[in-house]
Amino acid sequence: MNGFIAVHCGAGFHSDSLRKDYQKTCYAACRRAAEALSQGGNAVDAVEKAIIELENSPLTNAGYGSNLSWDGLVECDASIMNGQTLHFGACGAVSNVWNPITLAKQLCIKQCESLSLGRVPPCILTGQGAKTWAERMGLQIVDDQKMVSSRAFRNYKHCKRKLKRYSVQNDLTFSPLDTVGAICVDSNGVVASGASSGGVSLKHEGRVGQAASFGSGVWAVMSRDGIKPSIAACTSGCGEHLIRTQLAKNSAESLQESSPTLGLNKCLKEKFLESPFLWDIPERLGGSLALTFNPQVGEGELLWGHTTKTMCLGFMSTEIAKPKCVISYLPPKAEVGQKAVVSGVPFKVSMQPIPVLQWEVTTDLNLNGSL
Amino acid sequence: MNGFIAVHCGAGFHSDSLRKDYQKTCYAACRRAAEALSQGGNAVDAVEKAIIELENSPLTNAGYGSNLSWDGLVECDASIMNGQTLHFGACGAVSNVWNPITLAKQLCIKQCESLSLGRVPPCILTGQGAKTWAERMGLQIVDDQKMVSSRAFRNYKHCKRKLKRYSVQNDLTFSPLDTVGAICVDSNGVVASGASSGGVSLKHEGRVGQAASFGSGVWAVMSRDGIKPSIAACTSGCGEHLIRTQLAKNSAESLQESSPTLGLNKCLKEKFLESPFLWDIPERLGGSLALTFNPQVGEGELLWGHTTKTMCLGFMSTEIAKPKCVISYLPPKAEVGQKAVVSGVPFKVSMQPIPVLQWEVTTDLNLNGSL
Repeated sequence: MNGFIAVHCGAGFHSDSLRKDYQKTCYAACRRAAEALSQGGNAVDAVEKAIIELENSPLTNAGYGSNLSWDGLVECDASIMNGQTLHFGACGAVSNVWNPITLAKQLCIKQCESLSLGRVPPCILTGQGAKTWAERMGLQIVDDQKMVSSRAFRNYKHCKRKLKRYSVQNDLTFSPLDTVGAICVDSNGVVASGASSGGVSLKHEGRVGQAASFGSGVWAVMSRDGIKPSIAACTSGCGEHLIRTQLAKNSAESLQESSPTLGLNKCLKEKFLESPFLWDIPERLGGSLALTFNPQVGEGELLWGHTTKTMCLGFMSTEIAKPKCVISYLPPKAEVGQKAVVSGVPFKVSMQPIPVLQWEVTTDLNLNGSL
Repeated sequence: MNGFIAVHCGAGFHSDSLRKDYQKTCYAACRRAAEALSQGGNAVDAVEKAIIELENSPLTNAGYGSNLSWDGLVECDASIMNGQTLHFGACGAVSNVWNPITLAKQLCIKQCESLSLGRVPPCILTGQGAKTWAERMGLQIVDDQKMVSSRAFRNYKHCKRKLKRYSVQNDLTFSPLDTVGAICVDSNGVVASGASSGGVSLKHEGRVGQAASFGSGVWAVMSRDGIKPSIAACTSGCGEHLIRTQLAKNSAESLQESSPTLGLNKCLKEKFLESPFLWDIPERLGGSLALTFNPQVGEGELLWGHTTKTMCLGFMSTEIAKPKCVISYLPPKAEVGQKAVVSGVPFKVSMQPIPVLQWEVTTDLNLNGSL
């Protein structure tokens, strides 16, 4: 199977000294996704594999090496949305699961099953219960300490020391750096989106952020009529602000305007920077990686926009087979959290002879739910 | 302070034999909210107090007496949204907290505070972490067994027995009955919404439902210009379906159409019963209690709509001081989960001489977040 994959390792601030490492991580994630597609996986599988690569990197704030909570634990959020089935699976504040994104994917897949006594499969599982579920599914479970990288531990110690010294608010702030995401369209036209995040440093135990909230961290909707394009988006930034503004859903839908670039620009301006939901937030930090795709012609556009200093992303068409990496910067004069920058590139995916449109999936179902 | 309050104890099926008990519970909840307003509380306080009354009743699936999880525990979801500040606070899968709605309210209130090192107060807390936070706030914490009513325990035993006998799916289904909610507009024009739910019987540990998901269980937005009306809604039904369709947000916003009744009708039809997000769900179970209010003239409309067999609700204007209770039925020939019924009543609230519009709250803040 062919396809196009894009990944990011956060909207925040990426230091020049680590630039090459970030690039390498993005490359590896793209390649791993392409491998999944070449082995017959679909967009959801590709997104999962890309994010596994990003989670396993100690550089990112996802899976292993995530920021530590107030109590010194790694607690992860992750979610996946399948644009064909429109199913969403998410885990929040989960510890000990080596790859939270795989747990999210399994939850997403299981949405198709029906349970006995008319019970509905859970779409969001949190904490200890999420871990138990993952264990039962045979996912890799590790000790608390196995999730902690030396870098994250040093950072934790540093922050705790700072807090002791300055008990009131000061100018040292945490960057919502390095949470990760991926979006993909495969040659059946299926789109998918995934996100994984360790959350903000010193967060409260049990806190759930955008990566486990519907509409906030990921969004993917496949074209149902061949007229409206397929869309997908994943976001990064301050979780609470992304929840309030439902940035993934809003930014993906903004690409359906006649100019996707202007659409995303407008969305970041009106629905994020000027959002009434963030009226009391002086610095609005967020970024979105999004795509729009027309399955009729096999053409699409990848876009990214952010209000943070930088955003680091990579993308790859399996037909070209060499990933590209971009570190996007806010213009020097633009104030972080007050302005947005949007860029993009076009891409192509050679479609399979008979694309599986969602329409075909739904036709055998009873949809006569009229009033 | 004056105001108008409406409460519900679920969209599902309310048996005739318990009808009087449900009515009494709704009356008591309305009275408790009115008391809060008369003591100077605002819409958020009134919503909290109403829901405390509903949670404390063994009849409802919220707080004490909630459905038991697979492991025989009470795990609650609750949330509150303040339509003036647009802040949202939620707790998910939390045990041992006697009144989950108070925890949600505290999380909502704390959104206004800033933490040291630029950290952001959590808006969603789950599981053990939520309990710890509640404990620190001085909320009432009780033993596991204190949350379990004899009725819930009997029901749990019954369901487990059934499951043993029929290991495959059968025609016995759980009703998403008795989760609760409240909406209020006070005489300052502030609107608020709250929801509390014990989730579905035998749910997986850690499962989070609509009552802890942004946009799904509660929605409240106060008029900012005096032209668009203030809106609020709270929902009940199958949590996973309410999350996918974001029914609280959609149903509240639907009241902004020229006819709120037609608006809610259309919303339940197009964005719930015919929603592409529920394409694979044969029975779409949900209900919404919603209000629209024009602060310029002090007039509003309360509406309720559901696709379940019944919905039980109560409402009260503090100026009339006698609550009313309604058990709304789907027409006899309409199929549950396939059709919706919508009804409503007008109401009035005498406004304070100087209504506190959100506009006034925001003017002293830096809102120059332009692109």
